[in-house]
Amino acid sequence: MQLSINFRDVVSAKRRIEQHIKKTPIMTSSRLNHWLGHEILFKMECLQHVGAFKARGAMNAIQSYLESQEPPKKIITVSSGNHAQAIAWACDRLRIPADVYMDKAASSVKKNATRSYGATVIECETRLEAQERVAEAAETSDILMIPPYNHRDVIAGQGTCMLEVFDEINQPIDAVFAPCGGGGLISGCYVATKALSPETKVMGAEPVQANDAAQSIRLGRIVHLKDTPNTIADGVKTLSVGDLTFPQIQQLDGFYEVPEDDICYWTQWLQHLLKVHVEPTSAMSMSGVLVYLKAQSTPQRVMVVITGGNIASETMLKIWQDDHLAEVPRLSE
Amino acid sequence: MQLSINFRDVVSAKRRIEQHIKKTPIMTSSRLNHWLGHEILFKMECLQHVGAFKARGAMNAIQSYLESQEPPKKIITVSSGNHAQAIAWACDRLRIPADVYMDKAASSVKKNATRSYGATVIECETRLEAQERVAEAAETSDILMIPPYNHRDVIAGQGTCMLEVFDEINQPIDAVFAPCGGGGLISGCYVATKALSPETKVMGAEPVQANDAAQSIRLGRIVHLKDTPNTIADGVKTLSVGDLTFPQIQQLDGFYEVPEDDICYWTQWLQHLLKVHVEPTSAMSMSGVLVYLKAQSTPQRVMVVITGGNIASETMLKIWQDDHLAEVPRLSE
Repeated sequence: MQLSINFRDVVSAKRRIEQHIKKTPIMTSSRLNHWLGHEILFKMECLQHVGAFKARGAMNAIQSYLESQEPPKKIITVSSGNHAQAIAWACDRLRIPADVYMDKAASSVKKNATRSYGATVIECETRLEAQERVAEAAETSDILMIPPYNHRDVIAGQGTCMLEVFDEINQPIDAVFAPCGGGGLISGCYVATKALSPETKVMGAEPVQANDAAQSIRLGRIVHLKDTPNTIADGVKTLSVGDLTFPQIQQLDGFYEVPEDDICYWTQWLQHLLKVHVEPTSAMSMSGVLVYLKAQSTPQRVMVVITGGNIASETMLKIWQDDHLAEVPRLSE
Repeated sequence: MQLSINFRDVVSAKRRIEQHIKKTPIMTSSRLNHWLGHEILFKMECLQHVGAFKARGAMNAIQSYLESQEPPKKIITVSSGNHAQAIAWACDRLRIPADVYMDKAASSVKKNATRSYGATVIECETRLEAQERVAEAAETSDILMIPPYNHRDVIAGQGTCMLEVFDEINQPIDAVFAPCGGGGLISGCYVATKALSPETKVMGAEPVQANDAAQSIRLGRIVHLKDTPNTIADGVKTLSVGDLTFPQIQQLDGFYEVPEDDICYWTQWLQHLLKVHVEPTSAMSMSGVLVYLKAQSTPQRVMVVITGGNIASETMLKIWQDDHLAEVPRLSE
């Protein structure tokens, strides 16, 4: 088993990727802060290359590999989401061919986006077939497989977003919130945050309907969901966390399970207040933020990682089905 | 009749407002540029205070007034859109009470937003009643009425966004596109652009279903629509342009009338590619950009002013009703 990551891995990742990635802005909403009576900061990774933080981990994993080995003939992965685009983007930038295995049910928007970065999309009948075929292909020499989260360099790369946060914000941050799918982002954020600001709490959020991480924390072992969960937060539909991410997830200072209605509510409000096209997965954390803030007796400064902005048409239609903007966000009922 | 504005008015406006407004970013989409074979730049006024360029004109009109006169007891306007929020915001910042007259059919989101900046919203039965009551109130001494577009300082203020553009972009810009409602923005942009870069074309866009400006250009006189037009681009529902904006509108290098379907198509694509919550009124121009680009034989650099990002829930639902993301934007059919 590989060892878990440490802070030096995140610092090395920053050095490897900073010439390639965007230093994303930190945004706030004065109206939201006024309504809540606390200061909420948003790290806008939806404005990262490929519209998601995943560009960080993908680029770090490839660059780390290239430090000790010759360029592979091809890089492959299995993903129907933002990691697919991130691998395609990084490979295009480094001029390495990329094959992305997807199940054919993946949306045409995602297939088109992955192809638009120059990768070959290999359509499989099911997700399981995609996983089997990528595992088989990975056994060929000169082929590098980069998984979406359970990989040291991927986790360390995702954590670099918190280095940027602490570099930019010179005041104490009381809590950092991030969504938890496979756990790559939140593990990297946990390691970076605790090294730079040990008193800052790091909290995770997950849909109630895809709560494998919450179950895993409760039981002290990795729980695997049987079927792809039905949630609008498609960035956290993973069936389980990984053995490399679970140790950090177990140490989190808090974990929130969010109902679907809350996810839509906050996606509408963050799109409306920040004027940014944020994914439901990103907005979900705000439900946890409110539960956390209700228990605080002093004004808090909270950092929320906005993970991505790649949203299919049918998801947008679902998000805006009901009007949530009539009810202003407040801490008291 | 007041005189039309000139470049010095825009420069003065910049000096008056620059400590208050945001220097908004210019964004691009590498994928869109790749698909079109041209370079499209977006001036992101949806990331301006109050989520729209209107903050510029409102602040300039008030600051210009204060240069020669004592602060008014109250500032009033009639608007159910972004101008209402801009007046409320500017008055809050300058600590002057504000009354905004709206017809009661205006969305609760807009009323709430205007109130959240500290203004009093005075609800009237109809838009006509709101106009009559604001005109009556404006006759009281010590009350300053600031109209949404037909006002020299408002026009000059809106034009400041092009000063920022030419300050930031050091390469030639072939064409500037902006939507035309009452014409305040496009008139200001026209004056600033032609002074700084006379060879740059300035083009307007309007919904087919609200084409009073296009009709006015064709007939050489200001055409007034009888009823509020039915278009998803609610920022350009004005019934006519103004006598101060029409002279610039007549000089535009091109004017495009855009079908409703195209407005939704481009709103989806700009939200998707730029990851920003852009209003239909902003995205509309892209339909004109495509018609323009099809007629060009050399690669063009085009600046599109993204005017705002304040969108009601029901409008979002309409925008995303059909899936336009399956069909990638291209110049050839």
